[in-house]
Amino acid sequence: MKVINLGENNSVLNQYISEIRDKTIQKDNMRFRRNLERIGEIFAYEISKTLEYKTKEVETPLGIANCNVISDTIVLGTILRAGLPLHQGLLNVFDGAQNSFIAAYRKYGKDNKFNIQLEYASTPAIERKTLIIADTMLATGASMVLAYDRLIESGEPLHVHIVCPVACVTGIDYLAKNLPHKKVTLWVGTVDEELTNKSYIIPGLGDAGDLAYGSKI
Amino acid sequence: MKVINLGENNSVLNQYISEIRDKTIQKDNMRFRRNLERIGEIFAYEISKTLEYKTKEVETPLGIANCNVISDTIVLGTILRAGLPLHQGLLNVFDGAQNSFIAAYRKYGKDNKFNIQLEYASTPAIERKTLIIADTMLATGASMVLAYDRLIESGEPLHVHIVCPVACVTGIDYLAKNLPHKKVTLWVGTVDEELTNKSYIIPGLGDAGDLAYGSKI
Amino acid sequence: MKVINLGENNSVLNQYISEIRDKTIQKDNMRFRRNLERIGEIFAYEISKTLEYKTKEVETPLGIANCNVISDTIVLGTILRAGLPLHQGLLNVFDGAQNSFIAAYRKYGKDNKFNIQLEYASTPAIERKTLIIADTMLATGASMVLAYDRLIESGEPLHVHIVCPVACVTGIDYLAKNLPHKKVTLWVGTVDEELTNKSYIIPGLGDAGDLAYGSKI
Amino acid sequence: MKVINLGENNSVLNQYISEIRDKTIQKDNMRFRRNLERIGEIFAYEISKTLEYKTKEVETPLGIANCNVISDTIVLGTILRAGLPLHQGLLNVFDGAQNSFIAAYRKYGKDNKFNIQLEYASTPAIERKTLIIADTMLATGASMVLAYDRLIESGEPLHVHIVCPVACVTGIDYLAKNLPHKKVTLWVGTVDEELTNKSYIIPGLGDAGDLAYGSKI
Repeated sequence: MKVINLGENNSVLNQYISEIRDKTIQKDNMRFRRNLERIGEIFAYEISKTLEYKTKEVETPLGIANCNVISDTIVLGTILRAGLPLHQGLLNVFDGAQNSFIAAYRKYGKDNKFNIQLEYASTPAIERKTLIIADTMLATGASMVLAYDRLIESGEPLHVHIVCPVACVTGIDYLAKNLPHKKVTLWVGTVDEELTNKSYIIPGLGDAGDLAYGSKI
Repeated sequence: MKVINLGENNSVLNQYISEIRDKTIQKDNMRFRRNLERIGEIFAYEISKTLEYKTKEVETPLGIANCNVISDTIVLGTILRAGLPLHQGLLNVFDGAQNSFIAAYRKYGKDNKFNIQLEYASTPAIERKTLIIADTMLATGASMVLAYDRLIESGEPLHVHIVCPVACVTGIDYLAKNLPHKKVTLWVGTVDEELTNKSYIIPGLGDAGDLAYGSKI
Repeated sequence: MKVINLGENNSVLNQYISEIRDKTIQKDNMRFRRNLERIGEIFAYEISKTLEYKTKEVETPLGIANCNVISDTIVLGTILRAGLPLHQGLLNVFDGAQNSFIAAYRKYGKDNKFNIQLEYASTPAIERKTLIIADTMLATGASMVLAYDRLIESGEPLHVHIVCPVACVTGIDYLAKNLPHKKVTLWVGTVDEELTNKSYIIPGLGDAGDLAYGSKI
Repeated sequence: MKVINLGENNSVLNQYISEIRDKTIQKDNMRFRRNLERIGEIFAYEISKTLEYKTKEVETPLGIANCNVISDTIVLGTILRAGLPLHQGLLNVFDGAQNSFIAAYRKYGKDNKFNIQLEYASTPAIERKTLIIADTMLATGASMVLAYDRLIESGEPLHVHIVCPVACVTGIDYLAKNLPHKKVTLWVGTVDEELTNKSYIIPGLGDAGDLAYGSKI
């Protein structure tokens, strides 16, 4: 698994990450969602540099232009609900993509420990396509691995890109161990060092789902 | 249950409904999703006329203005995946709303018959709030009644608005029978007469989820 | 001239107007522009109820639907620069409209008095079309009358809709006197009583252009 | 003057450029504008990699994060009307930027020759700021040089970025000759070889203003 940290070199991405982290700016949940959408757009654009292109003759009102267009079939997968604004950003860029939605949740048992349960999955066939799976945060990595395993059940993709703007070391290690294939690239925007015993990233940003969509029962 | 058909009087809503129905225009799924988003914005605006408002003193750079602002707490519920672009439109209007996501699917048995299964539900408490549940189409009405029942488990809302731009008579009747409370308003944009034996609305528009997000396996 | 005040009956429009007026919320100029855009969308939708429609047979994947679509040719005119976010909202709704851009500015002479100067105008022919001219504020009304006169030079429109979310009595009276034609409708969201001697509306919201785009020299 | 051609290495930018060039896809002017907006977002993001950043302590709900945020003051200038959708894309990325609007037009004399006339300019002070001037096409380069000269009247910017997604050799040469300063970077997406005797780029895309906003008289 290749890891690319887009935040290492400065761009407006770092500005947006500072805003989604910021306790005060978080109070405006329209801006919080909008920032995740813009972050998704940036990752989509950077991923687009790695895709395959073919040349096409395009007829303009005044002549013929040779243009390069994407030849990959793209599937945008996301983990509900926190991944939705990010997914919106990816879809803004790849407007003709197919889409997968996965719902996972933390099922708490005794001692406040939890397992990730997969609930809902809606997906096209993945075989020979470029799969991009997005979730706002990469904490333990457990839900991402579950989502990955579920999505590739229907066949082997050409390449898998995993997009997690706010990641932590634990999650990256977990993915490296559990997704050891060569054709996986993990894209992150920042790498935080710690995970609380409730599996929240520190400093992180809190609960991305709650900040985008309100708390749930 | 009160039924309001916004399409009865002409507005740009009817233009958008003509576009989402149109086989040729449907090929552009960015426009398909955008039209559902705009349709969601229109329903949200019309629903906003029925909400409660309170007066607030607002300090402008040049004086004090008495403004009316919404006093209801709004929860926007949607049924995945077809309801998502519509939900985006509702959220564009009510940007500070809380949100519920419900996943339901058609589980086929023998003879091609199906039951609607509820899979995933993420919701805040609903008690004393204004609940708006949106799905693009109202076919049999079964998934909407399941979603409704699931969402109100946590308490009684002040009012429930159900938004289904493309509805059919069967579904409306089913809701009227199964949601007999006074505090439910069903908002539709067009009422089609028929339902196929596979429960597709005719003329309808086809499969809204596939048109927005690609077909699934 | 007919005057319609959409703010008289409560809707989410009043929420947005309270936000664009609010000194504190104004600090977020992305939200300020977004609110003007949403306000533009609401006015466009309400105006769409007054347009002409024709019935069209639309082929869906499952049948034929009779749909009503707009038959008017619409021209969206705006006054730069304060009108631009509002114009964006109108164009979001009427995406196939033609567009006019007018630039006017206040030319100050002695004693801090000013005349409105028309600088730039880019416009299609208006003859037999529905013209919608938008500007965020209606203060003295002088620039709106200049814009109106300039746009109708090329022919008589079927109807003219003037959209000014924040208006004052002086401006409305000036328009009524200078645009006495039957086919003009003025749409406002709030009517403020006063105008300062520098022609700022009180309580108003300050300078809409500066709040959207930053101050200018 | 440094020239950067973002289209040389494949990315989704090339897909968008193929779409704005395409006679058939151009019929959907909502998509045409949206593509220009997305193109503007891509250029803004790439330009953001060249800006100055400063570190800021940000308080998250769970800790303190050191984040890098932009320290430049950005002014987004555009040439009306063709540059507006592109400007919208730049503003989507740099939402707190200040803005300049310039209107220029081709004034035709005898023999179908024309001069570019500057009409309207609304701009903040530019001194010590980062100025980004955007126009969809760079044909002769005359209007861009006029806009540049007008905008820097009020002081010397730190750096000037000129964004012209569809450029031709003639225009690039003209800018290189007339903007010989070291602190100017020209960003293009494609370089076309020819210019007609009416100064249209071949193969180009036709008239960007007409395609976005309808033809004008």
